Amino acid sequence: MKVHGKPYRSIWSGPGRHEVSIIDQTLLPHAFDVKTLRSAPEAAHAIRSMQVRGAPLIGVTAAFGIALAMGEDASDASLASALSLLGATRPTAVNLAWALDRMRSVLTPLSAPQRAQAAWTEAQRIADEDVELNRNIGLHGLAIFKDLAVRKNRPLNILTHCNAGWIATVDWGTALSPIYQAHDAGIPLHVWVDETRPRNQGLLTAWELREHGIPHTLITDNAGGHLMQHGQVDVVIVGADRVTRSGDVCNKIGTYLKALAARDNGIPFYAAVPSPTIDWTVSDALSEIHIEERSGDEVRRIAGLDAEGRPASIAIAPEQENVANPGFDVTPARLVTGIITERGAAAPDALAALFGIRPAAGARIA
Amino acid sequence: MKVHGKPYRSIWSGPGRHEVSIIDQTLLPHAFDVKTLRSAPEAAHAIRSMQVRGAPLIGVTAAFGIALAMGEDASDASLASALSLLGATRPTAVNLAWALDRMRSVLTPLSAPQRAQAAWTEAQRIADEDVELNRNIGLHGLAIFKDLAVRKNRPLNILTHCNAGWIATVDWGTALSPIYQAHDAGIPLHVWVDETRPRNQGLLTAWELREHGIPHTLITDNAGGHLMQHGQVDVVIVGADRVTRSGDVCNKIGTYLKALAARDNGIPFYAAVPSPTIDWTVSDALSEIHIEERSGDEVRRIAGLDAEGRPASIAIAPEQENVANPGFDVTPARLVTGIITERGAAAPDALAALFGIRPAAGARIA
Repeated sequence: MKVHGKPYRSIWSGPGRHEVSIIDQTLLPHAFDVKTLRSAPEAAHAIRSMQVRGAPLIGVTAAFGIALAMGEDASDASLASALSLLGATRPTAVNLAWALDRMRSVLTPLSAPQRAQAAWTEAQRIADEDVELNRNIGLHGLAIFKDLAVRKNRPLNILTHCNAGWIATVDWGTALSPIYQAHDAGIPLHVWVDETRPRNQGLLTAWELREHGIPHTLITDNAGGHLMQHGQVDVVIVGADRVTRSGDVCNKIGTYLKALAARDNGIPFYAAVPSPTIDWTVSDALSEIHIEERSGDEVRRIAGLDAEGRPASIAIAPEQENVANPGFDVTPARLVTGIITERGAAAPDALAALFGIRPAAGARIA
Repeated sequence: MKVHGKPYRSIWSGPGRHEVSIIDQTLLPHAFDVKTLRSAPEAAHAIRSMQVRGAPLIGVTAAFGIALAMGEDASDASLASALSLLGATRPTAVNLAWALDRMRSVLTPLSAPQRAQAAWTEAQRIADEDVELNRNIGLHGLAIFKDLAVRKNRPLNILTHCNAGWIATVDWGTALSPIYQAHDAGIPLHVWVDETRPRNQGLLTAWELREHGIPHTLITDNAGGHLMQHGQVDVVIVGADRVTRSGDVCNKIGTYLKALAARDNGIPFYAAVPSPTIDWTVSDALSEIHIEERSGDEVRRIAGLDAEGRPASIAIAPEQENVANPGFDVTPARLVTGIITERGAAAPDALAALFGIRPAAGARIA
């Protein structure tokens, strides 16, 4: 998508096979700075310091890290050391382990002289596959937005929570992909952006939309219900960290409250996810998914720019203040209108069938 | 209520008739500083600069401002000038106009030599009446909490939004009054405190509860629904800016989302208000009450303490970011379990009868 009017991905290679460029996301939304990675340790640092974030992008960055290592030294020892270094950066990231396993199985059988080229090709392929996945999610979401838009004689009002945008993937994003597709297709739209406390990822969403030229308005997480009561929201769309076989949506904390308000006001609520995000082994998210409790300092402290425009952080609550900070919540399938995937959109009770999988026994029907 | 283990009101007079003390609320929750007001201009400054906040407290501060003026010069000219000065501090505050009208009608018929004593007595009476109103709200709420607590063999978990505490009134508060009463009555309890973006009044609630020794936990506004889904909330209680004849509750933005989650999880939802907050002329809040749109800078900027512990403010979003900031929302009566007033608690459809008023035609029944 666009930054300063120019199309970007969140990671790109070249010139040549010696470097990879990323956007330093720790500086967003306040500054746009491209960093160049020239070695596996530099790629590892980019992941560890969260200059790159979002599961798909972390996986792709690690794959390019392996490719950079192979360009310097393609020995078995070098491959093993790069896999171990990059694998230890964010131990709980599923895409990271998945991408590294894929690089390992492609490269291990090859002779050292073949590895540099093969690693580069495979990393690029992983990146391109992610773009294609998200582009397809966008096209299926676009069809839904088109249908909603024809009934309005004003811009379609879309509300989103957190950041499921192109910078969390390689391009397009998940929840934002249909928004970019609809905008590019000339459908007039406006996006309400939840700030998404405590980490304020909504500011990244607002930055993305601003740079791509999509009309939007930043709101507090408290405001969405009021806007829905007054007819100012036509559809809610979010990403997800995990979707279950029965269509429960586990996503950033606060998503459930927006789904409740959407239901109370007769507004459709969608989650947009690539199919690897669907966990077919889990049916009832509320009883089966453990919700991560994150550091209270995410609530006590907020980062931004000080009076001189320098990055700064302030304490809004004292150190001794007791804080609870659950990172995610569960929106039960009964509140979900549809799950939008690269294969199409389906109501929660039709999700398994869309992928040729038998629905969970006792699955709740939306 | 207590601060540093010592009982306080939010405003108190003496020694003698020359001064009034207040807590400088602009410094809370980071610092506790008592300021002394010795003249009407000092009282006006305290109101204007928001050192005192909350409708009841603003009214009482203005009344004491008149008393301070009468102590210096009790002439008609001095009375008129003090009424005009204090009346202009926060033009939209209903309690302010009400308190000043009351002082005017008591003082105008009196001769100048009688005015100083009478003004002091009347201001003190207005303060004491506010305390009594809130104490009674607390006692009626206490009965509800007692009933809920006997069914638990663990502390009663209460969730509240915004600050409807003792520092917004003269003492006890509205929504927090039943919590103080229950704590003082030995009922084990724990309070979930919504931070309440954008102005973070939840930090004032957390400060109040900490100082009074009531167990509590600060959470983001996004977290309450998740806690309710997991059985960690037994009751929700909030204050209100306006309650309608049919029991709709107009309160701080985000209240509606918590009421929806309470309903979805079978949790009772109460609003605690003194009867002057009930607007008998309005029935349907959604169509009849205009919601104030506040400055976008409340969302773009956040105040706290910098690394050196000095008050500071940072920008979390750029100046040019489009922001919407509705200040309040409406929780429809159908989501409200009861309204707790100084006269007792009533379901929305029984509220008018509690005050001997005929219910609104077509009132929705909860």
